[in-house]
Amino acid sequence: MTDTVQNPFTVDYVDGVVILLDQAALPAKEEHIHCTNWQRVAKAIADLEVRGAPAIGVAAAFGMALAAETSTAVSGEDLLAELAEVGEALNATRPTAVNLAWALEVVLREAHQAPRERSSVVDAVVSCARRLHAEDLATCKAIGDNGAELLAGASNVITHCNAGALATVGYGTALGVIRSAQKTNPGLHVWVDETRPVLQGGRLTAFELGRDGIDCTVIVDGAAASVLRASDVGAAVVGADRIAANGDVANKIGTYGLAIAARHHGVPFYVAAPLSTIDPNTLSGQEIEIEQRPAAEVAQYRGAAITPESAQVYNPAFDVTPAELVDGIITEVGILRAPYHVSIAAAFNN
Amino acid sequence: MTDTVQNPFTVDYVDGVVILLDQAALPAKEEHIHCTNWQRVAKAIADLEVRGAPAIGVAAAFGMALAAETSTAVSGEDLLAELAEVGEALNATRPTAVNLAWALEVVLREAHQAPRERSSVVDAVVSCARRLHAEDLATCKAIGDNGAELLAGASNVITHCNAGALATVGYGTALGVIRSAQKTNPGLHVWVDETRPVLQGGRLTAFELGRDGIDCTVIVDGAAASVLRASDVGAAVVGADRIAANGDVANKIGTYGLAIAARHHGVPFYVAAPLSTIDPNTLSGQEIEIEQRPAAEVAQYRGAAITPESAQVYNPAFDVTPAELVDGIITEVGILRAPYHVSIAAAFNN
Repeated sequence: MTDTVQNPFTVDYVDGVVILLDQAALPAKEEHIHCTNWQRVAKAIADLEVRGAPAIGVAAAFGMALAAETSTAVSGEDLLAELAEVGEALNATRPTAVNLAWALEVVLREAHQAPRERSSVVDAVVSCARRLHAEDLATCKAIGDNGAELLAGASNVITHCNAGALATVGYGTALGVIRSAQKTNPGLHVWVDETRPVLQGGRLTAFELGRDGIDCTVIVDGAAASVLRASDVGAAVVGADRIAANGDVANKIGTYGLAIAARHHGVPFYVAAPLSTIDPNTLSGQEIEIEQRPAAEVAQYRGAAITPESAQVYNPAFDVTPAELVDGIITEVGILRAPYHVSIAAAFNN
Repeated sequence: MTDTVQNPFTVDYVDGVVILLDQAALPAKEEHIHCTNWQRVAKAIADLEVRGAPAIGVAAAFGMALAAETSTAVSGEDLLAELAEVGEALNATRPTAVNLAWALEVVLREAHQAPRERSSVVDAVVSCARRLHAEDLATCKAIGDNGAELLAGASNVITHCNAGALATVGYGTALGVIRSAQKTNPGLHVWVDETRPVLQGGRLTAFELGRDGIDCTVIVDGAAASVLRASDVGAAVVGADRIAANGDVANKIGTYGLAIAARHHGVPFYVAAPLSTIDPNTLSGQEIEIEQRPAAEVAQYRGAAITPESAQVYNPAFDVTPAELVDGIITEVGILRAPYHVSIAAAFNN
């Protein structure tokens, strides 16, 4: 297995530049975007050049570090006020993933705890962002190791979207579980939903699993039910963009249908995510704002028309899988089980 | 509502030329293919330039007419032998839809019943093909009118793939039901699964419903479960490529997942198809050969790569929905209900 942390690295901060692997260009081109101002980071998040809940949290934190280091504010107070505005702008780029808001909140809190000189505030922001970056990798490895037992005897696993190294700093959440499971179950084969409309499965999951030499096969999303019926699938494992306090899971559009099909076939359905994806202030999935994306994501592919020009398109980026379809939430502190309002509260109180 | 039979017409036979609307080019280009030999008809079926179970049955029948009229065989016997070979080649283009085999069988039977002069055999083949063409339209209108009552009070209906005028000679099966329902329920809105990988929903269903002024919205296949949960959907209605004697339904990949999601939400799931799509000799869905299509349908869109070059792809064209998920089969002789082995046998014995 190659080192998926550095090669390809998803997000980093080097010599005052936020470096992002351009995920919109993958797998055709493997290029990095060099952001020298925070606005470019915001654009990269909005345009899905960097995507995946944990990755956009870290990218936004580095955007704050970049804003702090390049600010013309003279006093610590002025810088804090400026950072609050930058944080709002970064947070507005995508509404559903809670990691974005969470990372910005952590950075701003630590900035406010620093002494009020400009340099202290800058140092606090930069070191906080770097710590979030390092923690994300450690968290993913813990998630992977905690979930590996669930795939111990499995011949196949199915996943949706990309909850991999590319969606995080490295290793991945759902794909972290698969990576850890492979260590003791190297024959494990991965069915990859292509994940329309942005094709994060066909483009990104197939790319990073292929890079790691993990056996996988891409299917259209509509083929998942057939695969669950005909193949010996041990589990479905997906990531999450926000998990409510009751265990309802917002994740990429198509996740809910996969969860229904998994339940129909008696295949356990697991969600792998860090605690930072769980929002104790969101009581249920009904409270989660679902981002509506441009019609062009459905109506065109790389400039070639799919639908007639006149066609109406409904393009929600996410759906909500009710907690009753979720057989476990794999986190860095262990596997949470139903009733989730109890297990989630306990995880946050420890 | 415009005349969907002639404009756009799917398949016709004019002055010794089989004319096919090029469905692979839709909706970007609206062009007709002029086939002057049966081999071009076979290629059009294999390449999905004409698709939809009833439409490929009629196209193949016209291919036989063209083969008969252009044959150099002198005797009726020689012509019959040649037509048997042409029929085998046409039948081999696609294995799942039974209408193809059915139409070829009808044409060959009538050719054999004609007097043994060459001209009589030619006349029998051409007139049989023209009759199948005319009957298909009448059959679709009967299917539509029989199914309309099922959508009488519905605000929304959801469909998958294209079982419309473009999949038939005109009017359509599933879309025929929607067209007939619209006459008394003009506010009916259609959710259109885009239907990966070939996008018959996003490209073709959206095109023909738009042409007819029927209100519709395209979604990715993965959004269907969310739509079934959040919208007031009265029914799911789809077509079929083959229906077994026990009511199991082979249809476009993704149909099975839609049927599971419909049942999960208590939304009735109907299949609209002519009796010629039911194969009494296929006892159950397990006996249906599922066509495997090229990986490129999933891996590329109009030449632009989606997956990494190294990616494995599994691309079955169809899936099988078990009869227990089917709430009714809408045919030209009425709505068949479970137990299907009884209702189907009765329909064939009348």
